[in-house]
Amino acid sequence: MRKVGVIGIGQTVISEHWDKSFKELAGDAILDAMLDAKISACEGIFVGNMMSASANQQQNIGAYIADWVGARGAEAFRVESACSSGSAGFRSAVFAVASEEIDIAVAVGVEKMTDSPMAEITASLATAADNDWEASHGVSFIALNALIMQRYLHEYQWSHSDFANFSINAHKNAINNPNARFHMRITPEQFIKSPVICDPITLLDASSIGDGAAAAIIVPIDFDQHQLQIVEVAASAAATDTITVHGRKDPLWLAAAEKSAKSAYAQAGGITPQDIDLFEYHDAFSIMAALSLEANGFCDRGQAPKLALEDDISLSGKIPVASFGGLKARGHPVGATGMYQIVECVQQLRGQAGENQVSDIHYAMAQNIGGSGSNIITHIFNNN
Amino acid sequence: MRKVGVIGIGQTVISEHWDKSFKELAGDAILDAMLDAKISACEGIFVGNMMSASANQQQNIGAYIADWVGARGAEAFRVESACSSGSAGFRSAVFAVASEEIDIAVAVGVEKMTDSPMAEITASLATAADNDWEASHGVSFIALNALIMQRYLHEYQWSHSDFANFSINAHKNAINNPNARFHMRITPEQFIKSPVICDPITLLDASSIGDGAAAAIIVPIDFDQHQLQIVEVAASAAATDTITVHGRKDPLWLAAAEKSAKSAYAQAGGITPQDIDLFEYHDAFSIMAALSLEANGFCDRGQAPKLALEDDISLSGKIPVASFGGLKARGHPVGATGMYQIVECVQQLRGQAGENQVSDIHYAMAQNIGGSGSNIITHIFNNN
Repeated sequence: MRKVGVIGIGQTVISEHWDKSFKELAGDAILDAMLDAKISACEGIFVGNMMSASANQQQNIGAYIADWVGARGAEAFRVESACSSGSAGFRSAVFAVASEEIDIAVAVGVEKMTDSPMAEITASLATAADNDWEASHGVSFIALNALIMQRYLHEYQWSHSDFANFSINAHKNAINNPNARFHMRITPEQFIKSPVICDPITLLDASSIGDGAAAAIIVPIDFDQHQLQIVEVAASAAATDTITVHGRKDPLWLAAAEKSAKSAYAQAGGITPQDIDLFEYHDAFSIMAALSLEANGFCDRGQAPKLALEDDISLSGKIPVASFGGLKARGHPVGATGMYQIVECVQQLRGQAGENQVSDIHYAMAQNIGGSGSNIITHIFNNN
Repeated sequence: MRKVGVIGIGQTVISEHWDKSFKELAGDAILDAMLDAKISACEGIFVGNMMSASANQQQNIGAYIADWVGARGAEAFRVESACSSGSAGFRSAVFAVASEEIDIAVAVGVEKMTDSPMAEITASLATAADNDWEASHGVSFIALNALIMQRYLHEYQWSHSDFANFSINAHKNAINNPNARFHMRITPEQFIKSPVICDPITLLDASSIGDGAAAAIIVPIDFDQHQLQIVEVAASAAATDTITVHGRKDPLWLAAAEKSAKSAYAQAGGITPQDIDLFEYHDAFSIMAALSLEANGFCDRGQAPKLALEDDISLSGKIPVASFGGLKARGHPVGATGMYQIVECVQQLRGQAGENQVSDIHYAMAQNIGGSGSNIITHIFNNN
């Protein structure tokens, strides 16, 4: 398997893009990434997207986007694994270049959700759960996460307010991210008084959907392009778990995160969680932030709220997370999110994170969660 | 890029499966293929599927199917490129094994369409066209193909009845395929009297949708498994064209077929169309059968009806096609079709095609078309 890396990145603001179509968002991110990489052509476009069939009445979006960006003839298809579609697309691009099938691949994650009525979006998101056993009984995604959080609070005797800093930290980091959905600090008082959506989850535990696209250009690590820096893909790993939450041996343990992370640590040369300088995690809900920190070995089981309470997740903490705002405050355009995480890792490893730069950074990890933990993809990047 | 091959195949009957769910169909094909390969585990499942979001209210189907077949933990995601989703999933599996990332991959194509009202299926199929410029104006897929066929008849001065043998040949070959949707011969008279659906396309020009799944197990070519035969993937290539028909320089030329076929011939060691002993083509409509034969170099432009009229497409002809009935008579469960084509190539190269065996066969080519020619994927298999 030949080594590959990222030579260009691009992204759009995450917002309600009333004036941009689905393909324009994807095109903007791709063309930004191509400009960044100083390339004008590519051989393959791998699109991460979850909801184009329902929210945009458009499939075959590989060809659709290739056509729009002028990459006529290039191979192109869509990869879908619910909310982890973005990094599934990236992983497909990595395969394509690593296999020596192609030399220049584009991975783009795109989602345009806000044109659709919220009830339709909720129903669409629920297709990431098991339709027979979860969705068709009315169990929405937030309900699944609420059940998990309720159990966590009971099992480890934390109170809901102990989760405040996951959201406070994310919103603080988003202030300096021009592409973030929200630019407002939140206080502990606001967190505590936040309205309950599905007990115990409140508005400020939950990430916001949005429209957006992010892209990266993947090339062999020895690709020579005007001496541009190539950030190495040190590891790419994916794993699944039962699609239902009730089917799991332990609903408080993200087995697919643990499995893919272990594989990724090994691929990156036998590193450990202590070697990771930045963790772009999948904080769709604050409970997922906590479970992610635990399953990946950043703290013991049941101890993630302690990491947050002691501010170990800040930009200068033991394990900086959500350095551009995370899903919570940067926003969560579902099929695009994985690519935002990856683009942000590259920004940090290039030293292009401005006010939010993590110092002395060598390894950045992005982890994207599909479903309620059923499909988890982990990438580690290295700027050696 | 390490060489890979197919060591196991499986498929379900194509029918209206009222008694089988979506995941059961996929599971049946996968377990058949695993039994065939005498393996009990896999590292990755790559699912080709177009319509699960709309027809089955289910996404995240990689994890969903992995869970169902007991491949818990294995990586799994869905690949979509409209009607060529099946072979896009296969190509992803090829990448994964060729890159040395994994050693045993499952590719499965699955579609369960017949539970949905026909109007919804027609609308869903139209998402493979450009929503802004085609579908939202009411141009369905059959309408696009009718426009192309109309132009072809005008340009090359053929009459509609000259296309009869594409369908007659397909139905003849399906008789001996227990997995085919139809087991009835059709006559030239029936073809001529067939009711017009969208002028000039009649009922007997068009393939039928259906429910079904087909799967293959992909391994490195030097994989040692009880001396089982491994059919080599001699070439895998994909290309796109404009998503709209009107956007093409020449609507009668499948540029993406030509591009991917040229790449495939080169990959297979510089072979030519004359070296291909079987062509499993994408005869969704008889006009697509004709355009495919031309774009891949099996005859000159405008001459495909002649190949059919002279019976050169029969099992003992110059270029046998649709050896198990093709899309026309085997059936066209859209996202599964590409995998049926591939499974059938392997059956032929193993000498397991029974009454329909093509003699002295060494190279078999499967070509899967997404949209009206916008996303075309070509594979060549070899039994050396």
